[in-house]
Amino acid sequence: MTRDAGPRLDHVITFSGGTLDRADQLRVHPERLAAAWADPRAQIIVLDGLDPLPTDEGLLSAVPVPGDAVLADHALMGLREDGAPVFVSLLMSKPAEPPISPPKVWQIIPLLSLPEAALYGAARSLVDWHARHQFCARCGGATHPIKAGWVRQCDICSAEHFPRTDPVVIMLAEYEGKVLIGRNARFPAGRFSALAGFVEPGETFEEAVRRELWEECGIRTGRVDYLFSQPWPFPSQLMIACMAQALGDELTLDEEEIAEAMWVSKDQVRAALAEEDGAAFIAPSKIAVAHHMLRDWVGE
Amino acid sequence: MTRDAGPRLDHVITFSGGTLDRADQLRVHPERLAAAWADPRAQIIVLDGLDPLPTDEGLLSAVPVPGDAVLADHALMGLREDGAPVFVSLLMSKPAEPPISPPKVWQIIPLLSLPEAALYGAARSLVDWHARHQFCARCGGATHPIKAGWVRQCDICSAEHFPRTDPVVIMLAEYEGKVLIGRNARFPAGRFSALAGFVEPGETFEEAVRRELWEECGIRTGRVDYLFSQPWPFPSQLMIACMAQALGDELTLDEEEIAEAMWVSKDQVRAALAEEDGAAFIAPSKIAVAHHMLRDWVGE
Repeated sequence: MTRDAGPRLDHVITFSGGTLDRADQLRVHPERLAAAWADPRAQIIVLDGLDPLPTDEGLLSAVPVPGDAVLADHALMGLREDGAPVFVSLLMSKPAEPPISPPKVWQIIPLLSLPEAALYGAARSLVDWHARHQFCARCGGATHPIKAGWVRQCDICSAEHFPRTDPVVIMLAEYEGKVLIGRNARFPAGRFSALAGFVEPGETFEEAVRRELWEECGIRTGRVDYLFSQPWPFPSQLMIACMAQALGDELTLDEEEIAEAMWVSKDQVRAALAEEDGAAFIAPSKIAVAHHMLRDWVGE
Repeated sequence: MTRDAGPRLDHVITFSGGTLDRADQLRVHPERLAAAWADPRAQIIVLDGLDPLPTDEGLLSAVPVPGDAVLADHALMGLREDGAPVFVSLLMSKPAEPPISPPKVWQIIPLLSLPEAALYGAARSLVDWHARHQFCARCGGATHPIKAGWVRQCDICSAEHFPRTDPVVIMLAEYEGKVLIGRNARFPAGRFSALAGFVEPGETFEEAVRRELWEECGIRTGRVDYLFSQPWPFPSQLMIACMAQALGDELTLDEEEIAEAMWVSKDQVRAALAEEDGAAFIAPSKIAVAHHMLRDWVGE
């Protein structure tokens, strides 16, 4: 392990690695934004509800701007390397009926390229945020998108509202060569992952790691090291992955949060990641940051 | 510098270091919450608007629960080490008229103990969030606090809304023995700090660091190292402090964001931190994470 020798991660994490220039200066310059919209290379990412919409051309549909489309209904995701603008519609389409194969989003995402998955994740978070923030939390008035879809403004009180990103700590506690994994009651039998929880007002994320391990498993924690972060678009979390040094291994579970928890060795983690028969648990999906945390811990 | 040798920070950062047990299990158990409220040791933190209210007993007023106070109007901040519950009123008091000495909050905070400042910061963020989220962003209906003040629920559509914490990256770019600091147009003349910006949906915080340095100063960045985090209650940010290795030092400023920027040496930073006459800039306040980033960089 060479925590200090450079970027922590030589494997890539889904939903990061976007290649678009977000071009934030266009958001606040209406003429430049209108010029981007009118650019013949401009494209619109088409979603199926909030899911990717595969077409014959690719797994994430991108089409030229239709003649009847209205700029105010779209968010600017950014510019491709050649300068081509990419938008997404904020008028959430209805999901296909019947849905092809729910939850198809989980089947498509691993097939997307890293930049495509990052674009999809950012677009999904933004579209979903608009859909769930049609009204002003301050006065209850209707709101409308401004600044290329990166702000909503209240029609009544003019308050501006910004897309929400919720920081979440996700951690492996380590003790005598094993790490602690847990099974949320919502997970299928056998599926374990790293423990996680929202960072609350008034705490650092190291403090949030310590609090969550104490609340959920009764574990006291010493040193906490940051590993890496991941944007997670279900709906819009910032996952902050940490390694925590536990001060003991006796578990007291908060059974409303955690159905099961256990300490696992590197061999057990390797077997789970390799999906071996008889592995001690089913590892988290490759698109989840917990998968990368476990891979990192076993040195793969 | 011993980035890898343990916790990064041997100096403490204002608004972190809270000592209350947040006791989240009480939030979802009405009987246990009512018992905490009825505990004769229970206290209410009293704010002046959103500011600390000093009294003869201390800089952050805490009083026994008044006989006419209603639990539903209060949030549970947590339990003191001896088990005494601490609440804060969500009915935001009107600030004192005339205000004693605006902005008095900046004068009082450095005088608070670390645990007091952390409690104040968490309470301020939470009270402010309630005040600005009286209505449902989904349907426009009125909302009311539930779960000991840690959730608001819509009276109409029953949607639950959680306190918001916005992740912000704040970074020093380093190049050939100097770091980059900037002056926001809102700052007084001479006051410089680390550059900062909100993490957006669809990016890691390392990516947010690179984007902000590029957007604001035209600087390309290599390696990014996380330093430490700080909860910042104006109104509710999670400051994520990073050191970034710049790939060059030529500046192209976004003048709508940054009025001035400059590269400064360790000697210049030391002089500014020591508030020497003739220092190249006025350093950020000790309560700001940027102050600690600069101290950390010069090895103090």
